[in-house]
Amino acid sequence: MGKRSSATRDQILREGLALMSRAGLAGVTLGQLADQVGMSKSGVFAHFRSKEDVQIGLLEHMTQFAGPRVVEPAMREPEGLPRLEALVRHWLGWAGRAGLPGGCPVAAGMFELDDIEGPVRDKVLAMEGEWRGLLQQLVRQAIGLGHLREGLDVDQFVWELCGIYLSHHASSRFLHDPGADSKADVAFRALLDRALPTHVKPTEDDRKS
Amino acid sequence: MGKRSSATRDQILREGLALMSRAGLAGVTLGQLADQVGMSKSGVFAHFRSKEDVQIGLLEHMTQFAGPRVVEPAMREPEGLPRLEALVRHWLGWAGRAGLPGGCPVAAGMFELDDIEGPVRDKVLAMEGEWRGLLQQLVRQAIGLGHLREGLDVDQFVWELCGIYLSHHASSRFLHDPGADSKADVAFRALLDRALPTHVKPTEDDRKS
Repeated sequence: MGKRSSATRDQILREGLALMSRAGLAGVTLGQLADQVGMSKSGVFAHFRSKEDVQIGLLEHMTQFAGPRVVEPAMREPEGLPRLEALVRHWLGWAGRAGLPGGCPVAAGMFELDDIEGPVRDKVLAMEGEWRGLLQQLVRQAIGLGHLREGLDVDQFVWELCGIYLSHHASSRFLHDPGADSKADVAFRALLDRALPTHVKPTEDDRKS
Repeated sequence: MGKRSSATRDQILREGLALMSRAGLAGVTLGQLADQVGMSKSGVFAHFRSKEDVQIGLLEHMTQFAGPRVVEPAMREPEGLPRLEALVRHWLGWAGRAGLPGGCPVAAGMFELDDIEGPVRDKVLAMEGEWRGLLQQLVRQAIGLGHLREGLDVDQFVWELCGIYLSHHASSRFLHDPGADSKADVAFRALLDRALPTHVKPTEDDRKS
């Protein structure tokens, strides 16, 4: 692909990402994307073979877009709990801060595409799996460093954390709840409390001595 | 509306509910609904004025459909914690058990319609508000009866409970996680643990006496 062609593709992806964020994956059609970019439909078609191809391209573009805004700042924090807390802080509400007007396309895709088999669902599934894998890895690091307790159910922890993210997404974006951030913070603190190492409690014998 | 006309409308709503559950609110068009019911598009149009009118009719039909399956069995349980626990038990995974093949349309609508202003968004918002109102009412009853602790943040409790529901929806329907039910159960137990009345702990003076 030539330099100019690649630049056009990048421009289509940039515009398309904002469109996907607002209208959902199903809302991104070749026609609407052409309107948005100010190209003809066949112009867009020269860069993408199908609607699914556009949607997958946009999801890949989103990963590149989210990396420097969510993952990289967290990775600069010390390993263990500080890094996990930083990742959660950068994750909650990331799409709005990154200038994506319509929220996280992957979160929306999990509800939009739950019954629609095909390559786009597979892509969202792979992205969600990678994301949960990263969360699990950071939780396991925090256990290894003694920041979280041995024997913690890592799957369960990440499952509940994803629930906090989804509730934050729905309450901030759909319900326009001004308390969404603080509610997510209270919920995350409570989840961490259950995951902290248990401090050795004085036994009856210690008390007597 | 005549008896026959009303029966046809009911049939359209019944078929449409399954379609909405699978394809989302945006997936319900007059054309697709006509195909599903085996009527002409103008036949469907005689019963509903617009796509939005169909979608709102379907959401209202869903409330009637969910009532006997989710709310009524819970209301037969004793007031307070038993009723709240029963409601959560009937709520999680209700759509699948009720024969709706594609999950809860309101949960999906919160992600699908977060940026799309209009009467359908307003309807989903009102339904979600009523639902959260019911959850809050049952939590307050449980506090009043001493089953949950005084001073519990009811808003926060319901917010976290909705996160458990959304995580269960995404993990069971989108990720096909066979552990979704048990994870939701562990998360709900932990939420309840934080909400139970604090048992009076022996003070230093009690211990000395």
